[in-house]
Amino acid sequence: MNGFQFELQRENGRARAGRFVTPHGAIDTPAFMAVGTLATVKALDPIDLRDMGAQMILGNAYHLHLRPGDELIRDFGGLHRFMGWDGPILTDSGGFQVFSLATLRTVDENGVEFQSHIDGSRRVFTPESVMGIERNLGADLIMQIDHVIPGQSDEATARDASERSIRWLERCVAELDRLRAGGPPPTTTIPSSPPLPGTVFPLPAPNHPQALFPIVQGGIHDHLRRDAARAILSRGDWPGFGIGGLSVGEAKPDMYRVLEGLDAELPPDRPRYLMGVGFPEDLVEGVRRGVDLFDCVAPTRMGRNGAAFTRDGRINIKRAEYRTDPRPLDDECDCAACKRFSRGYIRHLFTSDEILGLRLLSLHNVHFLVRLMREARDAIAGGGTRASFDAWSRNWLDRYHSRPATSE
Amino acid sequence: MNGFQFELQRENGRARAGRFVTPHGAIDTPAFMAVGTLATVKALDPIDLRDMGAQMILGNAYHLHLRPGDELIRDFGGLHRFMGWDGPILTDSGGFQVFSLATLRTVDENGVEFQSHIDGSRRVFTPESVMGIERNLGADLIMQIDHVIPGQSDEATARDASERSIRWLERCVAELDRLRAGGPPPTTTIPSSPPLPGTVFPLPAPNHPQALFPIVQGGIHDHLRRDAARAILSRGDWPGFGIGGLSVGEAKPDMYRVLEGLDAELPPDRPRYLMGVGFPEDLVEGVRRGVDLFDCVAPTRMGRNGAAFTRDGRINIKRAEYRTDPRPLDDECDCAACKRFSRGYIRHLFTSDEILGLRLLSLHNVHFLVRLMREARDAIAGGGTRASFDAWSRNWLDRYHSRPATSE
Repeated sequence: MNGFQFELQRENGRARAGRFVTPHGAIDTPAFMAVGTLATVKALDPIDLRDMGAQMILGNAYHLHLRPGDELIRDFGGLHRFMGWDGPILTDSGGFQVFSLATLRTVDENGVEFQSHIDGSRRVFTPESVMGIERNLGADLIMQIDHVIPGQSDEATARDASERSIRWLERCVAELDRLRAGGPPPTTTIPSSPPLPGTVFPLPAPNHPQALFPIVQGGIHDHLRRDAARAILSRGDWPGFGIGGLSVGEAKPDMYRVLEGLDAELPPDRPRYLMGVGFPEDLVEGVRRGVDLFDCVAPTRMGRNGAAFTRDGRINIKRAEYRTDPRPLDDECDCAACKRFSRGYIRHLFTSDEILGLRLLSLHNVHFLVRLMREARDAIAGGGTRASFDAWSRNWLDRYHSRPATSE
Repeated sequence: MNGFQFELQRENGRARAGRFVTPHGAIDTPAFMAVGTLATVKALDPIDLRDMGAQMILGNAYHLHLRPGDELIRDFGGLHRFMGWDGPILTDSGGFQVFSLATLRTVDENGVEFQSHIDGSRRVFTPESVMGIERNLGADLIMQIDHVIPGQSDEATARDASERSIRWLERCVAELDRLRAGGPPPTTTIPSSPPLPGTVFPLPAPNHPQALFPIVQGGIHDHLRRDAARAILSRGDWPGFGIGGLSVGEAKPDMYRVLEGLDAELPPDRPRYLMGVGFPEDLVEGVRRGVDLFDCVAPTRMGRNGAAFTRDGRINIKRAEYRTDPRPLDDECDCAACKRFSRGYIRHLFTSDEILGLRLLSLHNVHFLVRLMREARDAIAGGGTRASFDAWSRNWLDRYHSRPATSE
């Protein structure tokens, strides 16, 4: 599969430990991917991510297409070089951002027309144009564009969106084949970046292989999810599977049931990526149901708002009770923030609007999820007995949920 | 001198290379000190500072007294422990901030009464209360409180302020002796921090020795500067000298002339610290006139506004010309930003309001000044001939000033 490989190393109940190899390195799964929306994981340096053991990060095609432009990033040699991260990168297709950020959105069979949330300009995303964007960005893993709908959509809406997403998948594959064969990028209505003075340095488009993941849709309707999975499987041998349209407003039991249903449908020898999820407890629940990869902006976004994950639940560092607290954010954490700084100091940074505060909480929260997945992996791989991961995850969830609600 | 020592290693014209030893380590001079106003050098981590070779940093008594409170920092074990920096620290006395930030200021012989710029509360700084604050913070070097006046004040105003500053110096010494002998902190009108719930952990006040620097005042009036230096010298054997009241609006030739006059008055075997200066060219001009230590918020403040120092002058990274520029900020710089990121990428970070951009430019600018002082030191110490530093500094200034004005 052209530089890609997935090794399923251990199963423990539905939970799986594996190793996913890409042209830019391997990812031990289950794994959490930090989100580098605009070619930077907010408030962090790529070195911070490497130091904490993060192995793969994510970029957003929608955001990068608007700013600074995917063609500019191509001219810088691709996203890896542009942002100084030489590990694996996954780019999403922008489908979710068009759904959640853009305005005046119209979806038809051709694609999605929308207005940029930055400058109001009209843009069109089609399967063809999005493959061109993701090829310019040059990530290792690229996602198909899908038709995203609200989490509690009725069956007819969910069916239409899911079936359209599968037709779009076929167009993504055809376009990617055409581009790989050396075809010119598609002519689209996407305005290219305006010419500006400066150094021009044309570079070849990234030519390392890119693996396309289909996205299984179908809302919270079990039979639609099953139909989608089977339809996708009938159309090719895929390097992995995105599970989309979850954590978008539906109830948690619905999400868990969908994941359990898909665990039986998806081939065990391919990684499964639960898109946009999530919080620590969601990751553990997802791993329990056979998920290998996760991403979410929560650790950095919440960190910038003063929230820190701890093994005993979430705390908000801005609260007055932490003013004189000499303890680290989490006693058992070995991140660069917890090894050196007290809650009292970090609270002072937030109270004084100091940038270092944003950095330390973002760093801690991403580290928390990266390490959580390492611990889950150890519980799956090292435990030996089928019960070991189940016991570990139940204990972990019990402790995380034990914190009194008044503390945040 | 109780853990302090200054070694004058080489003189080259008026320029000096030395080594200043403190209880928290040594500083090779000339040296630039980054300013950690609120117990953090803005946008940077203490590790960044160590990695770039910064040896001493500065904290502001005024800011730290208001937020989070010097008593809280004392209870955390002092400023070094609170902020995670175990190298030498210097604290200023707050005199300059009262002058530049506080409102409704009244100065009399007792001290300065002012209104906090944070919450409008009334505060009083006296020589006694400021010694208590600086002792709570526990820096290695502490500055006397002085009466700060505008840079172009007339002779009578400058004389009054300078003579008052010397009387305040005597009170600082007396209070420091009293505190060192175990006396209780002074009863002042400074409100202490309100009690809050949380962990209480009384710790001893920092008991390592602190070296008090007097501040030479006298405005731009050569004879007042000379009188101040002689009056201070007649009052004790000081571990070093602050030169205050410069870079506050006076013309550059006035500053240079004052420095040249003081070079003849101040003992060569003590370090001289030019307070609040400055820009790269100011540092070089200061070293040429016998200054050993500098501090300024310029590198971090300007960095947050998109300005970067380069050997060819200052650039503003937000300009459109850098959009496609694959070069580092400065071709000859070995900072963590220049080794890994392009101007084009950093411009994108600024255009997108990304925190990493603030960090990278702050890091580069502080590194630029720290390295500039290392290079000045090498030119002084390594050159051998008296002309070598003079030639190095003239070449450096010519190149720095050569950049066409249109580029920023």
